[in-house]
This record gives sequence, C-alpha cells and structure tokens, in this order.
Amino acid sequence: MTATKPTNAAGALVALRFDRDVLWALDQTALPWHERELPLRSAAEVADAIKRLAIRGAPLIGVAAACGVALEVAADPTAATLARATDLLKAARPTAVNLAWALERVRAAAAPAPEGAALAAAARAEAEAIHADQLAASDGMAAHGADLLGSDAAPAQLRLLTHCNTGALAAPGRGTALAVVAELARRGRLERVLATESRPLLQGARLTVYELGRLGIAHELIVDAAAAGLIAAGAVDAVIVGCDRVAANGDVANKVGTYGLALAAHANGIPFVVAGPTSTIDPACPSGAAIAIEERAAGEVRSAATETGPQALAAAQTSCRNPAFDVTPAALVTALVTERGVAREPSPESIAKLLA
Amino acid sequence: MTATKPTNAAGALVALRFDRDVLWALDQTALPWHERELPLRSAAEVADAIKRLAIRGAPLIGVAAACGVALEVAADPTAATLARATDLLKAARPTAVNLAWALERVRAAAAPAPEGAALAAAARAEAEAIHADQLAASDGMAAHGADLLGSDAAPAQLRLLTHCNTGALAAPGRGTALAVVAELARRGRLERVLATESRPLLQGARLTVYELGRLGIAHELIVDAAAAGLIAAGAVDAVIVGCDRVAANGDVANKVGTYGLALAAHANGIPFVVAGPTSTIDPACPSGAAIAIEERAAGEVRSAATETGPQALAAAQTSCRNPAFDVTPAALVTALVTERGVAREPSPESIAKLLA
Repeated sequence: MTATKPTNAAGALVALRFDRDVLWALDQTALPWHERELPLRSAAEVADAIKRLAIRGAPLIGVAAACGVALEVAADPTAATLARATDLLKAARPTAVNLAWALERVRAAAAPAPEGAALAAAARAEAEAIHADQLAASDGMAAHGADLLGSDAAPAQLRLLTHCNTGALAAPGRGTALAVVAELARRGRLERVLATESRPLLQGARLTVYELGRLGIAHELIVDAAAAGLIAAGAVDAVIVGCDRVAANGDVANKVGTYGLALAAHANGIPFVVAGPTSTIDPACPSGAAIAIEERAAGEVRSAATETGPQALAAAQTSCRNPAFDVTPAALVTALVTERGVAREPSPESIAKLLA
Repeated sequence: MTATKPTNAAGALVALRFDRDVLWALDQTALPWHERELPLRSAAEVADAIKRLAIRGAPLIGVAAACGVALEVAADPTAATLARATDLLKAARPTAVNLAWALERVRAAAAPAPEGAALAAAARAEAEAIHADQLAASDGMAAHGADLLGSDAAPAQLRLLTHCNTGALAAPGRGTALAVVAELARRGRLERVLATESRPLLQGARLTVYELGRLGIAHELIVDAAAAGLIAAGAVDAVIVGCDRVAANGDVANKVGTYGLALAAHANGIPFVVAGPTSTIDPACPSGAAIAIEERAAGEVRSAATETGPQALAAAQTSCRNPAFDVTPAALVTALVTERGVAREPSPESIAKLLA
C-alpha cells in the first residue's frame, strides 16, 4: 500500500494507475474512510481485486483486466500465459461485458506477436490504448448526456437522481452517468443530485457521496427504497444511471435496483437515461433474458461496511438472496448515452447504428 | 428493564403487556440482538418510546398510545390531564392514523366520566378494549387474507414477498400482513417468504426475520432494491404489505419502498395486497395527496443498527432525505384486507362499505 494521493495533476480522482510493473488500484472497499492504493502485480491479484470489488464499475474492470493480462505476460511473454491470464480474468465477474470486451481486445492485439518482448509490448500497448479510449469515452458521454438532459426544453436547474456509483471510481476520466452529472454542474445547469445508498455494498453512500463532495456538487443521500416515492412526489426531474451490459435490443443490466427506478420514472413521466461506453453494448446478446445475473454471497446482505469494518445487520444464519444486478427492459429507457452519441428509445436498429 | 420472556403462554411474541401501573413494551430497537422489555409509566415515556421506534407498527402504536393515556389519568384523573396526555401522544408520529383513532376512542370514552376513579377506570377499560379489538382484528385479517391469497386459483405453494415488519411486533396478535403469511403457512399453502431488509431502520432484517424464524417459516432476506428484479424474474407469486394510513379513495401510505413494490407487482401481473385493520382507514382523508409524510432524522440514513449499536455508513456531514413512508395509489392495490373483509380494487365505494 502507499500513501500517494490517488489524484492526477488536476486534482481529479485516479482509480487506476499503470506503473512500470505494478497496477495501482484505489481500494474501493476502504472508501470513504481510507484513501489507499493496492499494488497489483499479477493477473490473479487483479482478478481477486475485481471479485471483491476493490476495483468495480463496468468500464473500470475492463481496463483493470486488460492491465492484468499485460502484467502477466510481461513476466512470462508466452501464448499460453496470454490465454491463461485472459481466461482467469474473464471468470472474475459474469455480468459486465466490458470485461470480456477488453480481454478480447488485448488477446487479439497480442496473439499475433512473436512470443517474448514483442508479445509483452503488444499486450501493454493495447491495455494502455483501452485505458485511453475509455478516458475519451467518458468525455464523450459527458458532452452528449449534458446536451440531452440540459436541452432548452429542460428545467434551467436540474434535480437528478442517480444510483450506485458511476463516477471516476467506476470508469476512467469522470465516469459514465456521473460524468454527465458533473458536466451539467460545470455548465451551471444542475441544482442537486439525489444519490441512492445502493445496498448491499453502499457504493452510493460510500463512493458517490465521496465523489460528489470532492466535486462540490450539492447532493442528498437517500435509502434505495425512498427513490420511487420521491420521484412520485415531484422531487426529481430525471434519473440517470450507468450500465453493466446493454443487449442488442436495448435491454439494460445494471446494479440491482435500477429496474425499480426505471418503473418509477416511467410511471411519473420523467426521463430515465442510461450512460455507458459502447464497450458496454453486447451485440451478441439478443435481450436481457440472455444476461447472466451474478448472485453474490449472503454475507453482503447480512452485513454492511462501516468505518470499523463489516458489521452484522441480521442474525448470522439468515438465508439471503443477493442478485447484484437486474434487467431494465428497453421500453423503459428514454435514452442510451454513449461516447458515439445518443440512442433515444433504444431499439435493435438504434443500437446497431451506434456500433456501426 | 426485565428479563421476562416477552411471550404468552402459547409461546407467541407479546410486544406490549399492560400491567397494573406499568406498560411493558418489548424494545424493538434492540432486536434481534437483545430481548428486553421497557417499563413505561407515563404518557411522556410512551410517546418517547413511539418516537424512537421502540414501539412501532401502526396498530401497535395506537394500542400503546391508548395505554399511555390510561397510565397518565390513573396518576391524575382529571379532564385537563386527559386532554394533555391525548395531545402529547397524538404528536408522537404524524402518519399512522391508528394513533389518532385510538386516542380519540379513549378520550371519548373517558371524557363523560366524572373526574377521579371513574375517569381513570373508563380510560383504562377503553385502552384494554382497543387492545382486545386489535387482537381480534389480527385473526380476522389472517383468515380473510389467507382465503384471498390461498384461493383455489392460486399456486398450491405460495412464494410471497413482504416489506418492513407487520407481525406480532407491529400489531397485537399475529400482526397484519404477517398474520396472513402465518395463516397460509398454518394451512400448508406457503412455500417461502422473501423479506426486504427495509432500510433505514432494518425492520425487515431485524424484526421480520426474527419473527419468521420463531414461527419456523422458510424465508430469505433481500435488500430493498432487489425486490423489483426478483418479481420480474418470476420469483414471487404475490406481494403483501401492511399500511399506516388508508385514504377514503383507497390510496395507501406505508413504509417507504411500498410504492416501488406496487409498481413492480403491477408491471409483472402479480397481486399486490395490503392488510390492515379498519382502524387504519382514515375516512376524513380524501386521497394520498392529503397524507402528511413524516421525514425522520438524517442520522438514520447515514448509519445502521448493528449488534454493537449504530454504525456510520456514510460521512458524518452527508445531507440526507429520509421520508419514512410513501403513498401507493389505489389503482395499484389488488385488494385491501381488513378484519371486516376484503375490498378488491379498493375504491371510495368499497372502502365506505368496509366502514359501514
């Protein structure tokens, strides 16, 4: 671990830094209580950090996985290691497609290179290219999303609701949905943000509140169950969330609770906007029904992360179900914001157009 | 405090016991970690226990408030004290109408009595009558609700989802919605219950899981945000919840998060059933828009109750919104189950019929 401030020269949060032979990852399980970076030196260490959500957010785990492969083949630049590291990291989490997408990019770039320094260099260069692409994608989403939500027809000062964490801790740069929020704030079009706590792992209470505080953006924290009632009460102009996988028909898998927010937005006539890089779109997945939903350990539901570590909220033997994601049908999505532009009322046609 | 087991001769939970000059209340803030009873000796002590949710559940706070008035006029059996105690307790919580209803019953019964022993006896008798009425109401709801949900057309083994706590800790007897669940289990018609944790105060994780465990009913705990996705995934046959106030048009105020469950049930074509005694119906309230929604302290959102006491989940200064309830429009309610019978698709007419 290191005491290095996880920020760049401009003071922005840096969730991942790829040093010569170490991937430094801001430990997201320790925030907001401790700002510390984990030094990751192998594919297995990166896979473990992804599994236990020290690194999280669909675009960020894609970048981290690519770096994990590059680390592994730097130590042993063979085709066998390239394949092994790719398989190991692909299995870390099942739902976000960015992971598989980034790994396939690294594999495809490195596989043709001769074993040895050239293979290692090709993997490294592709991992860095993925990082750079996702950084640029964040700026693209911010601009397109702010143009959409901050149109002349919208309220002058928007009150947005967001779920989970979709900022610099979830994707390179300013993030996905939170990049749109930050851009609207920069343009003077944001009144405030309602941030859901996002149980069980509290990415909203721990990470989004931390990021919004750093950015100086006015915000209020709510329990997940309060969102629908506040939307019905007229406290929200639009909902904006990220995504972990978008099917070819526009169905969206995202953090558990997203579908309920989409139902509430739809029932009350406010926009429900999803932001994600095109790397989150899975053209091979026909619809949400084909998306594997990760079920995580019961202990996450029975406890909560606190300053003093995890604390039990329920009796030790309580049976739990713990789906980490849910699926929002395309029909409930007002618009999908990507770095290449916006698909309004996403459909197979508009999704295909974004990928063309 | 006492070490007395808070159970009756049949082993059922007893949330309130009215002794000679003490109201013993099971301290619901300490469950499931500690089973302890609080001795309450005045209206102010009862009001405080209601405010900080040591006593909670719409029917139970009505009974407790009635006992609080009886305690106070036992010590000073005057019309002035009757009025003062009633006003003090009415201000304890704003949303549940049972509180106002029970207080008005005690006031109306005691006010005509001459000051002195007769006034004290009248208040005491009415408080005990209210307790007995609500106990009987629990059995009535259990029977009507189990007849409704366990009809021949329903699955042989029901998978129900419930929210917050609506059992013996929320209402005398077996409770409201959880009484229906227990009755279905008794009839051999229940497969299992999905129980939402019910943030911020975790009445599901702490109280419902505790009650279902005592009853030997199979259950799984979920975070609130997981409910809608599990309903969409086909894991739930019906949703059953309690209520804190039902308007004359059938709109329902209940624990925050209820509205979102109703939207999810409606979107996926499963019944959304509300159970409550007729004392929860407020004929003077025309619709949900007229129901005052209590906003509680931000500290409840920023922290969680754990075995070692409240623990911070977010930074200390985080701004929060904390509505304790939300409103579900009557159009989303499949049926309202009361001790007097069931109003299917509640309307002003069917609600009025229940009260006639």
